[in-house]
Amino acid sequence: MIEQQIKTAIRDIPDFPKPGIVFKDITPILKDPQLCVNIVDAFVEKLKGIRIDAVAGIESRGFLFGLTLATRLGVPFVPVRKAGKLPFTIKQKAYKLEYGTATIELHTDAFEPGQHVLIHDDLLATGGTALAASELIQEMGGVVAGFSFVVGLGFLNGKERISPVCDRVVVLAEY
Amino acid sequence: MIEQQIKTAIRDIPDFPKPGIVFKDITPILKDPQLCVNIVDAFVEKLKGIRIDAVAGIESRGFLFGLTLATRLGVPFVPVRKAGKLPFTIKQKAYKLEYGTATIELHTDAFEPGQHVLIHDDLLATGGTALAASELIQEMGGVVAGFSFVVGLGFLNGKERISPVCDRVVVLAEY
Repeated sequence: MIEQQIKTAIRDIPDFPKPGIVFKDITPILKDPQLCVNIVDAFVEKLKGIRIDAVAGIESRGFLFGLTLATRLGVPFVPVRKAGKLPFTIKQKAYKLEYGTATIELHTDAFEPGQHVLIHDDLLATGGTALAASELIQEMGGVVAGFSFVVGLGFLNGKERISPVCDRVVVLAEY
Repeated sequence: MIEQQIKTAIRDIPDFPKPGIVFKDITPILKDPQLCVNIVDAFVEKLKGIRIDAVAGIESRGFLFGLTLATRLGVPFVPVRKAGKLPFTIKQKAYKLEYGTATIELHTDAFEPGQHVLIHDDLLATGGTALAASELIQEMGGVVAGFSFVVGLGFLNGKERISPVCDRVVVLAEY
């Protein structure tokens, strides 16, 4: 039901950001307020019974549903940002991209040691960023409560890459 | 009431992102789910009676309360992004920064001509980005319904800069 609603809304953009890649454009989802409500409802339903002390949303599209989800769960939202954006004291994690490396950061006061943190982003591709976020959370003493994504690109095997950290991987619409 | 709640939560970070600037860190707000609800409630209250057909949130911190606000108002959320991030056909606007220039983009199907678009960001500083967004919306045939910010730095005169476009400027906590 929710999967079909999401897939109906998503727009395929061929050759973006580079030739050969078909980009899943989620902006039509954001134009449908009822679908946005349904997405958060679906996350809440699928995460029922799991201890979640905070939601970590990955910059920048993970900020969209991440804050709404955290607010609905009644827990803190903590931003996972690219290097140099967070102003307070930070911990960082570098990780490999297809070409080169990237770095993500979390504030040192994002959560307390032992707290269970849900990682959220709009889309699960190869899982590189989500994996780096999960490792950073663990290095900071947190427990990965699970992962939540609106969309997953199954053929890129992201789930296989992140599930050794925590096998609670919620994907609302899987391609 | 909401202003005091926001100011109590905000953390001053001296010399970020560069010496002499005191950065207003909003991340403690995001850790307080009740305050997040109160902020959206306050926006809804202050925007009552204004025609709003869409909320345009400015990347990336404008994505945080922007989507929640749009969902609460029952209208589309449209992302205003930095150059090269939006995958569909776009319109763009370059604008001056203190040093150099920046470019923002909107999808061409973000709204219909004649629709009233509220511009949202977390913080109003000099107003350069919000002004550029408002001009881009007007060039695309939209009407600027107003501006909404969680925090405003009054001493940078952003309100004076954007209010000629539309004088409905909602700032929940003004410094």
